[in-house]
Amino acid sequence: MTSSVDQKIVNTTQAAFDLKHYLKERQTLVEAALEQSIAVVYPEKIYESMRYSLLAGGKRLRPILCLATCELVGGTIEMAMPTACALEMIHTMSLIHDDLPAMDNDDYRRGQLTNHKVYGEDVAILAGDGLLAYAFEFIAAQTQQVQPTRIIQVIAKLGRSVGAAGLVGGQVVDLECEGRSDVSLETLNFIHRHKTGALLEASVLCGAVLAGADESVQQHLSRYAQNIGLAFQIVDDVLDITATQEELGKTAGKDLQAQKVTYPSLWGIEESQRQANQLVADAKAELQPFGELARPLMAIADYITARKH
Amino acid sequence: MTSSVDQKIVNTTQAAFDLKHYLKERQTLVEAALEQSIAVVYPEKIYESMRYSLLAGGKRLRPILCLATCELVGGTIEMAMPTACALEMIHTMSLIHDDLPAMDNDDYRRGQLTNHKVYGEDVAILAGDGLLAYAFEFIAAQTQQVQPTRIIQVIAKLGRSVGAAGLVGGQVVDLECEGRSDVSLETLNFIHRHKTGALLEASVLCGAVLAGADESVQQHLSRYAQNIGLAFQIVDDVLDITATQEELGKTAGKDLQAQKVTYPSLWGIEESQRQANQLVADAKAELQPFGELARPLMAIADYITARKH
Repeated sequence: MTSSVDQKIVNTTQAAFDLKHYLKERQTLVEAALEQSIAVVYPEKIYESMRYSLLAGGKRLRPILCLATCELVGGTIEMAMPTACALEMIHTMSLIHDDLPAMDNDDYRRGQLTNHKVYGEDVAILAGDGLLAYAFEFIAAQTQQVQPTRIIQVIAKLGRSVGAAGLVGGQVVDLECEGRSDVSLETLNFIHRHKTGALLEASVLCGAVLAGADESVQQHLSRYAQNIGLAFQIVDDVLDITATQEELGKTAGKDLQAQKVTYPSLWGIEESQRQANQLVADAKAELQPFGELARPLMAIADYITARKH
Repeated sequence: MTSSVDQKIVNTTQAAFDLKHYLKERQTLVEAALEQSIAVVYPEKIYESMRYSLLAGGKRLRPILCLATCELVGGTIEMAMPTACALEMIHTMSLIHDDLPAMDNDDYRRGQLTNHKVYGEDVAILAGDGLLAYAFEFIAAQTQQVQPTRIIQVIAKLGRSVGAAGLVGGQVVDLECEGRSDVSLETLNFIHRHKTGALLEASVLCGAVLAGADESVQQHLSRYAQNIGLAFQIVDDVLDITATQEELGKTAGKDLQAQKVTYPSLWGIEESQRQANQLVADAKAELQPFGELARPLMAIADYITARKH
């Protein structure tokens, strides 16, 4: 069953590039690599808990971006796959910890019970810690045919994108703004540039660094990532209002209920959509120097504003 | 004011090696490096929370072991200092998360309020995540004059020592055993080899790897570390019974109160002390090939059984 949005994507990009097929193919590769990345051994519960959230589906956008930029710069999927998996491990860790009662207190995620609802809070905290540590181990131990100095650069970038200078910093400001209705646009931008943007940017940059991208290429890709990162968040905020729980696979209307300041609450839905479209256009402009090779990244940028979940 | 135990250490090792002076000197170097490792910028709260626990004192045993093995194998303090700091960041992360209400629910640590009692549970969880991510970034970004392949090996070893195959795995089994009085010696050993032992072993091995230790040297040091790690835990268990809250800087008698299975509960205090002494003797035997150069590690092994906190 193809939704009208899926159909629209196919129609508008098919001549040049079959995004739906591309995403499906890459998703399958990433799923297989993730499936193999963690074996269940004693003590089984922690490995099961880590696998429960890591293999719960999702768009695998971060790994796919990482593979795409590695190929764009002349590298291979094999070179980037351990880093791609690590990105998903880190993203999953952030979701597990975000969902905890002490944080967002969510019972559902991607249509199933959150980690702590199944395994308990203690194990969920540890599963997050385990995934975070394993992400770095996995890159260091599994990356093949890449110059060691590039691997070290990737680890440094990735670490920075998760820590207080990235995701964790964004999350802290987000928590501080909870229940406040006077949050400025500047603060909202800070939250999302760090909470969502930093890891998306790392996804894009790490793939490029593994393939040996120079400073100028990294700068174009960095701006591409920052723009789609913010667009992604604006669309998320809009979908929280306009989409159903079934479409989202998580509680819908949560922001409104919590009277949370969001892009639509500051700008309205229409202007939010316009801003997201502009950011996507800006993102695509950064890809001009790469020509035809950038078609997957172009299509992914378009997909962000067209998606329904 | 010098305690009788401190005096005993000085007396027994002074002729060969002044451990007290050595530890003090190294501690000062490590404190200075840790102090500089994290600056407070916006959003201040997360950096303050990370610094609160990271700079709360402690023996700095892991960093000191790392510096010592790096020098033993012919490296310098400068080569190992970023990894030494990272080890303390990771150790601190494990303490912050351990103390959470969903885990051990401790109000005091090292004589002061635990992180979540000061900053709230949400920030404490994020401070731990931030420290863990920063540890890997710090090694990757700060390590100088070390071959890149060795840095990657260190990151792989360190990641493994924290994740489900190490510290996190030990912690999960520890949680599963909570309130059970039928815990076997095998399980107790598993817990401590992972919860405390894995990171101590990584501390010892990472310093050696940075300096280019070969496989045989790594094996001796690995067994040294495993033995002092277990001895360290046995002594911890004994001190929980025999030391006062003032001496420990944390709640004393907690194990007894929780009817927790410990080495003294399985073996009695006297036999526990004998086992700890034997492990220390075995650890020191592994250092024979290094001759005089191993004096710091010899003295640290002795210190473990003699310490009062």
